[in-house]
Amino acid sequence: MSELAHGTLAGLAEIAGTGRDSRRGGYSRHLWQGADLELRAWFVERAERTGLLVETDRNGNLWAWWGEPGPDAVVTGSHLDSVPGGGAYDGPLGVVSALEAVARLKASGFTPSRPLAVLVFAEEEGSRFGIACLGSRLLTGGIDADRARALVDADGITLAEAARRAGLDPAHLGADRDALARIGLFLELHVEQGRGLVDLGRPVAVASSILAHGRWRLTVTGQGNHAGATPMPGRRDPVVAAARAIVAVQDEALNHPGARATVGRLEVVPGGTNVIASSVHAWLDARAHTDADTRALVTAIGAAVSEAVTVNGCSVAVTEESWTGTVTFDPDLVGRFRAALGGAAADGTDGTDGGAALVPALPTGAGHDAGVLAASVPSAMLFVRNPTGVSHSPEEFAEVADCVAGIDALETLLRSLL
Amino acid sequence: MSELAHGTLAGLAEIAGTGRDSRRGGYSRHLWQGADLELRAWFVERAERTGLLVETDRNGNLWAWWGEPGPDAVVTGSHLDSVPGGGAYDGPLGVVSALEAVARLKASGFTPSRPLAVLVFAEEEGSRFGIACLGSRLLTGGIDADRARALVDADGITLAEAARRAGLDPAHLGADRDALARIGLFLELHVEQGRGLVDLGRPVAVASSILAHGRWRLTVTGQGNHAGATPMPGRRDPVVAAARAIVAVQDEALNHPGARATVGRLEVVPGGTNVIASSVHAWLDARAHTDADTRALVTAIGAAVSEAVTVNGCSVAVTEESWTGTVTFDPDLVGRFRAALGGAAADGTDGTDGGAALVPALPTGAGHDAGVLAASVPSAMLFVRNPTGVSHSPEEFAEVADCVAGIDALETLLRSLL
Repeated sequence: MSELAHGTLAGLAEIAGTGRDSRRGGYSRHLWQGADLELRAWFVERAERTGLLVETDRNGNLWAWWGEPGPDAVVTGSHLDSVPGGGAYDGPLGVVSALEAVARLKASGFTPSRPLAVLVFAEEEGSRFGIACLGSRLLTGGIDADRARALVDADGITLAEAARRAGLDPAHLGADRDALARIGLFLELHVEQGRGLVDLGRPVAVASSILAHGRWRLTVTGQGNHAGATPMPGRRDPVVAAARAIVAVQDEALNHPGARATVGRLEVVPGGTNVIASSVHAWLDARAHTDADTRALVTAIGAAVSEAVTVNGCSVAVTEESWTGTVTFDPDLVGRFRAALGGAAADGTDGTDGGAALVPALPTGAGHDAGVLAASVPSAMLFVRNPTGVSHSPEEFAEVADCVAGIDALETLLRSLL
Repeated sequence: MSELAHGTLAGLAEIAGTGRDSRRGGYSRHLWQGADLELRAWFVERAERTGLLVETDRNGNLWAWWGEPGPDAVVTGSHLDSVPGGGAYDGPLGVVSALEAVARLKASGFTPSRPLAVLVFAEEEGSRFGIACLGSRLLTGGIDADRARALVDADGITLAEAARRAGLDPAHLGADRDALARIGLFLELHVEQGRGLVDLGRPVAVASSILAHGRWRLTVTGQGNHAGATPMPGRRDPVVAAARAIVAVQDEALNHPGARATVGRLEVVPGGTNVIASSVHAWLDARAHTDADTRALVTAIGAAVSEAVTVNGCSVAVTEESWTGTVTFDPDLVGRFRAALGGAAADGTDGTDGGAALVPALPTGAGHDAGVLAASVPSAMLFVRNPTGVSHSPEEFAEVADCVAGIDALETLLRSLL
């Protein structure tokens, strides 16, 4: 990322060494652990250097204010945490772009007519405590505070305890009406996590909608025993049963056009090479275009995995861990932003198309804090082209020119809003 | 285990609280980590209290000597480490029984005519560095020292570094001819890891043979991506591919009568719920009655998994991590021990059987340090009945009366040998 080391994307270069994961590749930056704490400190320093006043809310989200905090503030930002072995752009691009856009406004002598904040949400990926968009869910009351406090990480540490260690009062976790009331509009810039902009030949889009999505834990239970001393017939091996269940998940998703169902995390208990396991936890990520489609998909998956595991004499329990209904961003706002960016973000590569006067509107299958906030306050998103189409992976990428186009677009919208 | 708190099995009671695994159940005691270090300190203290002189060899195995160290010593013992979430008996029963048998001999005023040592092998289960019977393999030169030094645990720590932290000189790891030359005969008592003695209605057996066995790593490689933004068609998801491979492993094992093949450990990379993985490591434990049967099984599995993963556009690499050929314990020694124990260990429950004059001889599918040593020095094993037939699990069990019968048998054999 040496090409970023100067100029508008210096922020990305500054954090390029933080949280690298030598085992998985890419970055592992998880809530309130080493790399995340470093990134938070970096953000505070960066924002203060830009002349902003930083505060941490009751749920660990960071707000960097230009002017008096709220009400009716324009808030822009994203997150700094990552999936395990994630890319450099998912999250940080939105934070760095927000800081850069503000710096440009300040440098130009612009005087905002309403407050502005750059917002960094905590635990957007849910990589430590299992709930995606945890910071925005807590802020908006989208998750019950008691349930949240009891969430545990892989080491058995509760969110309450982790919050305490991070200097927060666990009793104050949860819906924060005062903080929420300050937001007049939330705008999140994010690297695209698919090939929509690549296919259109455009650098920037406005988000139109987010698929309904949720996470379920499939716990397959069998009979633990010795791998060498136990004959094959009569085994009740939950690893084989879970394997059949995983194939069934894929088959069901393929039966539901447009739907997506993924098992990307497994925990074998106890997990010894010479041990027939006693149970397996498999986490299911399922998404479809409507709430009803997604519920129907998960119901079908539940039936299919229940049948699949019986072949190995095992049972399975399906537990919902999170749920987010379909988000349709406010069509008026989407239309307004597409028009406002028509000139600024059209890069001419699509000049033969009369539609180039408007930037494209694109749906996404990826969840975002903006999707959670959309239920409470006017919210919108900008996407920046990702030439690989790959995300949540070290192969995630964005060209510098496209990142700059994203900052241009964000600056244009902020000027129009402020 | 309160019934053990006094009397001959007090040693098991003393360590019953060490290394409990609240998450998996049972015990997790892994080489040179907290619980294992506590157990080593306990062993030193216990052995010294029994009047033995304890030394640590170049590979971290503990020797407690009665009399001058070797040559032609009678050596008995087992191991203190466990699989993740293992039982209380696999390993510790042999160590506690050896100490108790020696204490009884001493208390009776017995004077041995040759040296005796109680031996505790390091990393028998291979739970930290992946190679079962690592301590005995190092001692006998059954693993190349350079290869061993480079083994890494789940945190990326090499065996060389872990040995250094444990106070050993990593340069001295490997074949230890001086230590090995002291062993005249090795005798390991172990809880049975199947239902052989349950079916025979007998408390104790002499081991006849150990299945050939080994460990292979199956690395399935696909294409990591975002779980929400990536349509199902065209995915190259290594989790689904590995699932098909795991079902294929079971099918192949069922095609090879008497063979066993197990996947009990999985690592999904990167392992995020909302991430299509980029690769999966699945560890295969495979065993069969002869070396040729085992090799044929693994060859068939290799072909089957290679075909299985192509359905999901993935590839698989199969790497051998350890191999132990079939061990047939010396038939003369087995016969001699069965006869010597005919009276002592026959508990009358099988009195109608004329064969009760001999204790049974049983094969096992479980690997043991005695099996590794058998290639270098005369070696034998005693098994103690396990009423559940379950091992490598918290359900592993042995009745106190059967444990006492095991110590009786061990004491009888030591008297006859010393």
